[in-house]
Amino acid sequence: MINGKTTLIPHLGYPTESFKAPMIYNPWFAQQGIDAVVVPMGVRPDDYADVFRSLFRLTNIRGALVTMPHKVATMELVDELTPAARIAGACNAVLRRDDGRLVGEQFDGAGFVRGIVRKGCRLEGARAMVSGSGGVGSAIAASLAEAGVAELALFDAREGAARALARRLAEHYPALRVTTGTADPHGCDVVVNATPLGMNPGDPLPFDVARIDPGAMVGEVVMKHEYTPFLEAALARGCKVQVGTDMLFEMIPAYLEFFGYGTTTPEALRAVAQIRY
Amino acid sequence: MINGKTTLIPHLGYPTESFKAPMIYNPWFAQQGIDAVVVPMGVRPDDYADVFRSLFRLTNIRGALVTMPHKVATMELVDELTPAARIAGACNAVLRRDDGRLVGEQFDGAGFVRGIVRKGCRLEGARAMVSGSGGVGSAIAASLAEAGVAELALFDAREGAARALARRLAEHYPALRVTTGTADPHGCDVVVNATPLGMNPGDPLPFDVARIDPGAMVGEVVMKHEYTPFLEAALARGCKVQVGTDMLFEMIPAYLEFFGYGTTTPEALRAVAQIRY
Repeated sequence: MINGKTTLIPHLGYPTESFKAPMIYNPWFAQQGIDAVVVPMGVRPDDYADVFRSLFRLTNIRGALVTMPHKVATMELVDELTPAARIAGACNAVLRRDDGRLVGEQFDGAGFVRGIVRKGCRLEGARAMVSGSGGVGSAIAASLAEAGVAELALFDAREGAARALARRLAEHYPALRVTTGTADPHGCDVVVNATPLGMNPGDPLPFDVARIDPGAMVGEVVMKHEYTPFLEAALARGCKVQVGTDMLFEMIPAYLEFFGYGTTTPEALRAVAQIRY
Repeated sequence: MINGKTTLIPHLGYPTESFKAPMIYNPWFAQQGIDAVVVPMGVRPDDYADVFRSLFRLTNIRGALVTMPHKVATMELVDELTPAARIAGACNAVLRRDDGRLVGEQFDGAGFVRGIVRKGCRLEGARAMVSGSGGVGSAIAASLAEAGVAELALFDAREGAARALARRLAEHYPALRVTTGTADPHGCDVVVNATPLGMNPGDPLPFDVARIDPGAMVGEVVMKHEYTPFLEAALARGCKVQVGTDMLFEMIPAYLEFFGYGTTTPEALRAVAQIRY
């Protein structure tokens, strides 16, 4: 029950109509007795910088969830960026620390990595391949690096995007071996589709599935279908897989920790959420 | 349940800890199936103008509740003021109309007047006396004028404040007879204490109760005790009375109408509110 002591976590984006976060976080806060509330706030791009700065002058704000189209613009508005946010080139979470400084974070990659680790994947020393070097692919690559993979193979149809991501990774993870230029997943322990392929009927598969090792963990960011044709093919090959929406629920415990609200499991969140995927 | 389509009504003030409005409005919205939420937002005075302007650029804001210390500053930030707000010199509600213009309103007086009318008081052609020409006294005087009283006697220990209020009333209600300079309630149909007298033990009574007509309606703005010594004396004299907190619950239907959310009764609001007075 919102009251005068309730802490606010604005959910910033535009348009807001499809926001799901309030229906996941708020029932969790209610169940846990956490006096905080996620509030959707629609902000047009031209207004974003002013609105963002003003909101963080509220006395009862803790942080914000940031979504489209503001993830990149948020980079310029915070005082500090985590390596994941720098490498991804985008923030989807902001924390106002006790000293007033704003920290920008990025949890897409953390959500992905937490999910595959909880499915039994060992990342220390592993070889991973990520197709797609845009925002979400960059975030996943950063989190795989942070989790200790030994080698990251990056592929993007725009080779320049893959190379730029490789350079950003090298700045933060100098010991990591990063390669670009091929989409051949042979020999990889983790294979990730971070492209939009699978959104539309008739899309080509992002990888030649016959070249994926049957022991590999195969993950996906497309959420339009629970099992995309790519994941169906990987399952048929014997791989373990992670569906796109897992990343969403897996990242929420990371957000909760970031905001200082303890942690939980995706299963516990799903049990109280007012939406289903 | 807050979702991506929920309309926001910020409750602006500082500090926020004692805010009651969220616990009155939000259970009502939930019970009525109105997809709106009152969200407390703490704003320091120096930040208020910027925060106010930014918030009204949110795509999902309908209006705002305004409380201390921002009621006067809000006057300068809206596009239009109602007569009640102009006469009171303060706003406690702002509506963003469909054309984007911001309208500042003031409901303290409306709450007071609705309450006494529902208690059977007839105001058309009546003679009323209001002691205290500050914000709340001015608001009550404005609403009594709007309700059609024929004569308003204003008293304030600072005679200049009473005269200034008389001038503001005369601009909007040229047919109203307004007098100042005496606190003698003899002959008045409505007698209102809009001073802080009654807040503290040992305060003098705001009127000589022996001079109040036993048929008069006597009202109070002090909320510290349900029945102040002044109201106890008026009751003993045979008067009908209105307690201070009635004004609060009586004004909420007026706010709901202003925001376009239909109307209701104070009794219906009290039945679902998560607080009690």
